[in-house]
Amino acid sequence: MRLTDNESRVRFTEAPVARLAVVAQDGSPRIVPITFAAAGPDARDVFVSAVDAKPKSTTALARLARIAREPRVSLLADGYAADWSQLWWVRADALAEVITVGPEWESAIAMLRLKYAQYRAEPPTGAVIRFVVGRWSGWAASERSTSSGA
Amino acid sequence: MRLTDNESRVRFTEAPVARLAVVAQDGSPRIVPITFAAAGPDARDVFVSAVDAKPKSTTALARLARIAREPRVSLLADGYAADWSQLWWVRADALAEVITVGPEWESAIAMLRLKYAQYRAEPPTGAVIRFVVGRWSGWAASERSTSSGA
Repeated sequence: MRLTDNESRVRFTEAPVARLAVVAQDGSPRIVPITFAAAGPDARDVFVSAVDAKPKSTTALARLARIAREPRVSLLADGYAADWSQLWWVRADALAEVITVGPEWESAIAMLRLKYAQYRAEPPTGAVIRFVVGRWSGWAASERSTSSGA
Repeated sequence: MRLTDNESRVRFTEAPVARLAVVAQDGSPRIVPITFAAAGPDARDVFVSAVDAKPKSTTALARLARIAREPRVSLLADGYAADWSQLWWVRADALAEVITVGPEWESAIAMLRLKYAQYRAEPPTGAVIRFVVGRWSGWAASERSTSSGA
């Protein structure tokens, strides 16, 4: 069954992890798992993710450079289960930008700390990627049995 | 810690689900979860995935068209856990091709049925995507505690 935009939004927001696809300079795709959170308590289709600053991996820096060059990205959250009647996925096609300072950066860190205990123990200090979702696509094998789900 | 190619290969092969990133005609990325299996008992860096034939969704058909146009894809398997010391991911940058008939198609279906009980109950009948991995990238927060893992 197709999910409505709102069902997609809810399932995506609750997921602990998403996968981010970006396009490299040579036009080929790259994909990486990310932690993420809604950009603010009232942010509807805006999400944020922290880029791990240590170790300053070339992978993370390359991701920021790719987003600066090609801001169109695709995000995916999904639920896999041995019981395929529980499968679901939500895709968020988005525009991404890199934020390194200022109130948007601070608010992003606060929202990430709200969602993840690990960030409360040790706040991210590096760049933040901000995603503005332009299109939701979602599918589920069945209705949701509970409201927790993520 | 970085994973060796062989560690990456093992973790990837055992994972029940991967995410496939492709590039759309307009140059933006798309991402979708897939089931997949090694292409054969001795296939080293070749994997296969079935495209669900029913319902003949426009999503699935679009994916095949995108791969025909741009065979460079990126695959990701990862393990998320509330305990971040258990996190890992493996990325496989690959070339993809669509196979619809012949011995390679038959062998792919057999390998998918070997891995998934659901395919043994109801074999896939649609196109198969074949992936030849050109580069492995993998990372894990810690050594693996068991050999099961997937």
